[in-house]
Amino acid sequence: MKEYFCNVQKIKFEGRESKNPLAFKYYDAEEMVGGKKLKDQLRFTMSYWHTLTASGADPFGVGTYVREWDAEQDPMKLAKMRMEAAFEFMNKIDIDYFAFHDRDIAPEGKSLEETNRNLDEIVDLCEGLMKKHNKKLLWGTANMFTNPRFVHGAATTCNADVFAYAAAQVKKAIEVTNRLDGENYVFWGGREGYETLLNTNMGLEQDNLARFFHMAVDYAQKIGFKGQFLIEPKPKEPTKHQYDFDTATVLGFLRKYDLDKYFKVNIEANHATLAGHTYEHEIAVAGINGALGSLDINQGDPNLGWDTDQFPTNLYDAVLAMYQVLKCGGIASGGLNFDSKVRRASFEADDLFIAYIAGMDTFAQGVKIAQKLLDGGEIENFVKERYSSFTTGIGKDIVEGKADFESLEKYIINKDVSANKSGRQEMLEAIVNKYILND
Amino acid sequence: MKEYFCNVQKIKFEGRESKNPLAFKYYDAEEMVGGKKLKDQLRFTMSYWHTLTASGADPFGVGTYVREWDAEQDPMKLAKMRMEAAFEFMNKIDIDYFAFHDRDIAPEGKSLEETNRNLDEIVDLCEGLMKKHNKKLLWGTANMFTNPRFVHGAATTCNADVFAYAAAQVKKAIEVTNRLDGENYVFWGGREGYETLLNTNMGLEQDNLARFFHMAVDYAQKIGFKGQFLIEPKPKEPTKHQYDFDTATVLGFLRKYDLDKYFKVNIEANHATLAGHTYEHEIAVAGINGALGSLDINQGDPNLGWDTDQFPTNLYDAVLAMYQVLKCGGIASGGLNFDSKVRRASFEADDLFIAYIAGMDTFAQGVKIAQKLLDGGEIENFVKERYSSFTTGIGKDIVEGKADFESLEKYIINKDVSANKSGRQEMLEAIVNKYILND
Amino acid sequence: MKEYFCNVQKIKFEGRESKNPLAFKYYDAEEMVGGKKLKDQLRFTMSYWHTLTASGADPFGVGTYVREWDAEQDPMKLAKMRMEAAFEFMNKIDIDYFAFHDRDIAPEGKSLEETNRNLDEIVDLCEGLMKKHNKKLLWGTANMFTNPRFVHGAATTCNADVFAYAAAQVKKAIEVTNRLDGENYVFWGGREGYETLLNTNMGLEQDNLARFFHMAVDYAQKIGFKGQFLIEPKPKEPTKHQYDFDTATVLGFLRKYDLDKYFKVNIEANHATLAGHTYEHEIAVAGINGALGSLDINQGDPNLGWDTDQFPTNLYDAVLAMYQVLKCGGIASGGLNFDSKVRRASFEADDLFIAYIAGMDTFAQGVKIAQKLLDGGEIENFVKERYSSFTTGIGKDIVEGKADFESLEKYIINKDVSANKSGRQEMLEAIVNKYILND
Amino acid sequence: MKEYFCNVQKIKFEGRESKNPLAFKYYDAEEMVGGKKLKDQLRFTMSYWHTLTASGADPFGVGTYVREWDAEQDPMKLAKMRMEAAFEFMNKIDIDYFAFHDRDIAPEGKSLEETNRNLDEIVDLCEGLMKKHNKKLLWGTANMFTNPRFVHGAATTCNADVFAYAAAQVKKAIEVTNRLDGENYVFWGGREGYETLLNTNMGLEQDNLARFFHMAVDYAQKIGFKGQFLIEPKPKEPTKHQYDFDTATVLGFLRKYDLDKYFKVNIEANHATLAGHTYEHEIAVAGINGALGSLDINQGDPNLGWDTDQFPTNLYDAVLAMYQVLKCGGIASGGLNFDSKVRRASFEADDLFIAYIAGMDTFAQGVKIAQKLLDGGEIENFVKERYSSFTTGIGKDIVEGKADFESLEKYIINKDVSANKSGRQEMLEAIVNKYILND
Repeated sequence: MKEYFCNVQKIKFEGRESKNPLAFKYYDAEEMVGGKKLKDQLRFTMSYWHTLTASGADPFGVGTYVREWDAEQDPMKLAKMRMEAAFEFMNKIDIDYFAFHDRDIAPEGKSLEETNRNLDEIVDLCEGLMKKHNKKLLWGTANMFTNPRFVHGAATTCNADVFAYAAAQVKKAIEVTNRLDGENYVFWGGREGYETLLNTNMGLEQDNLARFFHMAVDYAQKIGFKGQFLIEPKPKEPTKHQYDFDTATVLGFLRKYDLDKYFKVNIEANHATLAGHTYEHEIAVAGINGALGSLDINQGDPNLGWDTDQFPTNLYDAVLAMYQVLKCGGIASGGLNFDSKVRRASFEADDLFIAYIAGMDTFAQGVKIAQKLLDGGEIENFVKERYSSFTTGIGKDIVEGKADFESLEKYIINKDVSANKSGRQEMLEAIVNKYILND
Repeated sequence: MKEYFCNVQKIKFEGRESKNPLAFKYYDAEEMVGGKKLKDQLRFTMSYWHTLTASGADPFGVGTYVREWDAEQDPMKLAKMRMEAAFEFMNKIDIDYFAFHDRDIAPEGKSLEETNRNLDEIVDLCEGLMKKHNKKLLWGTANMFTNPRFVHGAATTCNADVFAYAAAQVKKAIEVTNRLDGENYVFWGGREGYETLLNTNMGLEQDNLARFFHMAVDYAQKIGFKGQFLIEPKPKEPTKHQYDFDTATVLGFLRKYDLDKYFKVNIEANHATLAGHTYEHEIAVAGINGALGSLDINQGDPNLGWDTDQFPTNLYDAVLAMYQVLKCGGIASGGLNFDSKVRRASFEADDLFIAYIAGMDTFAQGVKIAQKLLDGGEIENFVKERYSSFTTGIGKDIVEGKADFESLEKYIINKDVSANKSGRQEMLEAIVNKYILND
Repeated sequence: MKEYFCNVQKIKFEGRESKNPLAFKYYDAEEMVGGKKLKDQLRFTMSYWHTLTASGADPFGVGTYVREWDAEQDPMKLAKMRMEAAFEFMNKIDIDYFAFHDRDIAPEGKSLEETNRNLDEIVDLCEGLMKKHNKKLLWGTANMFTNPRFVHGAATTCNADVFAYAAAQVKKAIEVTNRLDGENYVFWGGREGYETLLNTNMGLEQDNLARFFHMAVDYAQKIGFKGQFLIEPKPKEPTKHQYDFDTATVLGFLRKYDLDKYFKVNIEANHATLAGHTYEHEIAVAGINGALGSLDINQGDPNLGWDTDQFPTNLYDAVLAMYQVLKCGGIASGGLNFDSKVRRASFEADDLFIAYIAGMDTFAQGVKIAQKLLDGGEIENFVKERYSSFTTGIGKDIVEGKADFESLEKYIINKDVSANKSGRQEMLEAIVNKYILND
Repeated sequence: MKEYFCNVQKIKFEGRESKNPLAFKYYDAEEMVGGKKLKDQLRFTMSYWHTLTASGADPFGVGTYVREWDAEQDPMKLAKMRMEAAFEFMNKIDIDYFAFHDRDIAPEGKSLEETNRNLDEIVDLCEGLMKKHNKKLLWGTANMFTNPRFVHGAATTCNADVFAYAAAQVKKAIEVTNRLDGENYVFWGGREGYETLLNTNMGLEQDNLARFFHMAVDYAQKIGFKGQFLIEPKPKEPTKHQYDFDTATVLGFLRKYDLDKYFKVNIEANHATLAGHTYEHEIAVAGINGALGSLDINQGDPNLGWDTDQFPTNLYDAVLAMYQVLKCGGIASGGLNFDSKVRRASFEADDLFIAYIAGMDTFAQGVKIAQKLLDGGEIENFVKERYSSFTTGIGKDIVEGKADFESLEKYIINKDVSANKSGRQEMLEAIVNKYILND
């Protein structure tokens, strides 16, 4: 098999003193954290689109990335080269999982039938490589935003034929995911939203979206797909308003249409940023609603208003996100998917490895420090003590449903309210720093 | 009775050519729009807090507003002066409704009992003035954010005594609202949120919030309060993250806790801005979920990140908001409440009138133009045609639940997708302009 | 000559009652406003890039626009078709000016020499069409952001060869602009900025940018180019931080390097939005510094954080921008350039005309209403009165440089400060509304 | 002398393993970093306003902070208690510098004369305590934003009497700063900006601001004040648009009015955030312009749009800010002023100490890690190599002014541009992480 990343050998763990840019300094896959190997706690996942098919183009410039397969003109040959390169990359970077859109791995044909044949041919190749290299599919999904037919949306289009096309496309994508033993199936509503309310029937569009999801659930049950369905929230971009704005919005939608038992969320850091939330907030919202499915790890720039999809290198984000994940009992059937692209100016092939290493080291430290924070207990004990008034007396009555407005008025009408205590935000932030610095 | 606004007579409608700053140019209360008098379509409401008790203080400076009652030191006398001034103001500005927090109208005492007595005394006065001047209460609410006891929240506090106090306070506020025939009761969660996740048990806090709302529902039923319960979304400020982030979040919360049949939303323009939404978006979301309760009209500054609560003068916001309201069948038991404060630099008493006039003229034109847009039909017909593929054939099957992934695949697999048509955003925006300019 | 927009005839002024989407309702080119014909007050300009070469692609999808020249594969033939279409479009939409980047009109060759030959060939065609159709070049500019060679910037690159290439490219672009009697030459620093400070020598980069500008000034003088040099501020996108952040930043830079007498600014509405400013603010800043050069008219979406370049349809923006322009004495050698692109969903060729009409009608009303506001004098007189204390007494002394801290202390130490008066923001906003509604 | 913080002893350095919330873990004042003691590198400064006079009030609630002097009603006695407490606090927290506004330390009287007498009385006390406790004044300033007389601005007011008052107030504030050997004098233009352009003569206001600064320069020279004048940029809040928007804007203003040789900037982290910049960006801009004066250290919340003034605990901000400071040769006559307030929910007196400790530990690590980054050289060497093409050949010619457009065209017209190299952003970010984690 052709080698695509000739300058790079398999990346090894060399420890924190290493100055080798092509070595892990903090990620030792076999290290035990919280009772599991790091690789099982984190389940790092390669995103096919940013890693294999992205070019570095942006709205103001064409592609910059230098890739071995650049010269290939034939789309199916190109697709196969990328698939081979994908497994070489996963092997060298030591990642077990990948995730893809249907259109990442195989080119569109002249009809859906031909497109499906293209896809099948590449899936054959993929399946063989998965067995050979012992790699797993975290999730599959369908790209329903690139092609002009989806200009007005897919499941929320105003054109019934496009809805039908989208349905057929997702049907196939679920079949393929099922065939490859994908552990999840993700819906990111790339153009499910609106550009202007002036031309939009939002009620019909959302009803249709729910109909689409019910059809997906029915079909998955019919073919015995056992993977978890996930919705990935994003508030805006490409459309002005995306219907899956954030986790809370998605949960409200699912409940309205009796879909909540079938879906969890795949939370992306940069999408949280665009919605005005922290990453850990979105994870916590999913957590308290039993809906944490998987994570897209990346980072945005707080001063930029679009999805920059940077590789995650912020230790705070990693620590605080993993702290919430550990409090939920771990990432379960999900994983940590690098929905991250190297900067347009990081165009050399080596940068792909350097960037993944940076992200993997960051989240390795993230989960290790998060576990120590939990084990240390300073924060959890502070929180427990802070809410202790709800474990006895009137607080217990409130929680147990034994109080009402009248009993509470009677209790408090002539009583001094017990003194509040400081929330100690600064102390808690310093504790987080201590765990980062002393690790 | 003392006159508080001596420089101002009753504001009259003088028509669009008037140059009198103290006259309506567009708001003629008796004009018929959409089958109703303007005053009944709009149900303008005076906010007690911004109109009577605000001072013009901001985080960098003390109050500036010059008010007749400034010198009064005795809190109860001051409260009575303001109540009298409120009715003089409503009479002169020709507004029939008002809205208040408990702590706007009566000062806090040394105990809740004394506080309640203060409140009762002022409510006596208020009730008499309402009858005398034929004014109505759009809604009451409780201020549970000013007093330090609520530093960690009210229904979402970590201190059970504070929860009890809040319950007793809302109990009383509902009673008072009921006594004054308030048509709604509003919950704005002033400090229901968190400052840092590090010290917060978000799951318990949200469960407690739901418990609180259920208690409120139960108590209202017990005392026979018939008004509509409303939640007012806001994403941030004063807390870093407010639980009632936006309309979609509130609806998801209500559904989770089986509260959705008891609550609608009171949507504020500036809160929509802070959440990254347009005002009309929030109204439309409420509309398609049958949850539009009432409106707080004001406007923010898109370049500022806090709640500026400016008087609404943007015609687009007014037209597009009222367009959505009319599509919902009107504002029902709600109204258009001026949750707006004169600028700190608009400190003269006259500015209060000038600002209300500006807002009332803006929304009068807003609803008149919105009605003409609906009557003209260019936009609605465009939208109807745009989605027409869902009224026949495969689209009809989809909407009626007769299609599934397999039937849709069969339909589309070898068919050319019917061509999309332009969304015509620019044309629709020009139509809105035409209605504004030609009115 | 081939006709490219077969469905559209020359657009006519039909007046405000017209329902014809392909007619002007408010823009009558010959109407006199402020002593000039509307077409001379506004000097509308066609942007070549968005109008002829854009495709509707966005970061999540490929092009959607349907254009007559889509099928052409040969780059030079395609360039000629577009050039012909450009003049057909200008004729039909009745616009006299255009603006272009070198790479909009002619494709890049294998070397700079070949590229320059391509350009010359197209400029020949362009020159002939300009004479034939009596069209004028508002400004030329160089695209130094699309090609990968500019990945690290052009004048602010870290690669001296790229700096040299950029110099040679701008040399040629100025020559071409000069040949076509361009009235201005614009510098938009597409990638003049940084992605991360960690890899950036900002001091050297800014010094080099100044060196580049001085070379451009010297060369223009050498060849006798009389057009005005303009810098177009933008705060971010594509780079994380663009050096020409906003008008104030550009002016500070120009002064530092003794460039301020050679440059003015070309202010874009959407760039103002991204910098956290209003459009009128940026124009006013240029105005009080004698630096208003030209305008790129478009609009952003206040809820979106990227450059949406929408066609301008907001009447407030148009009125308030033109109010500032009129206060500066007009747009001088500049014009109103439609740096605006039809929405990706407005992909039909007709949408181009509809969108230009929407923008031209908006700015026609904008300048007419602005002129009436000036003529009416309510606002200007209010402002004049507001600052009148600086025309006599101590205020006059201050302005005339006759006061110092000691004299001012002596004046005020025992004096009551004369009372402030209300700023009357709400009244002034209502006046603006009146002029919009009553026009 | 009364003890105000009875629960807290002098804070000691206990090292990184300490779990004592009232001990330094990383800040050892005597530790040598970059050839200086940490205390001399950092020159930590206590802000008088947030530390002694703040109450915890916010726009939605009254004060919460519990302070020993709460009960004192007499304003001069209160002022003296706070002054004593200030020195106790500085002693216990081991900070040598403080900074204050005139109105922080002494209450306003009925006339400016009385106000000045109040100030003198407190300054007497202050001077004595400074000598006794060996404390120094980093800078003084005047509060010209709290009092209603400044509702329309101070130096940029529309009321000439207010300008005169402001002049007299700053005259006195400079005198007092001079008397106390203040090393700098700061101008933060609290209300120097506008609320709406509709009522504003921006040109006159900015001219007046320049006149004001020239008067200040003249007066300082006259009385022999040797301290550095500093302007503190802020883009918005309280006014909609503050004239001193950011560092670049301030520098442009200073150059326009020939003030640049007299002023440097005092850069606040949270103000940078509000302007859409990083802290390190603002420092770097000052650095390359020779204008870095002093720092206000705090932090904002990237999801909140107002000045939260949180205590700085983000290690990245501290490292990257101090990296820029060290590259400028240190903070010179400036210092690191805690313009930070404890959260409203951190209302106990202990929180003041805990918060300062958190901030001091953060910046101690910040400068130590920054120095190691510099000493390690990975980043600086990468940058040096990256721009090396400007040290020889054509690049050297460009930098030395020996090139022009013609010579550059000749050089490049038939030459292949030398290949760009990757910008390696991800690698550099990982290096920063390594220094943070391995310290």
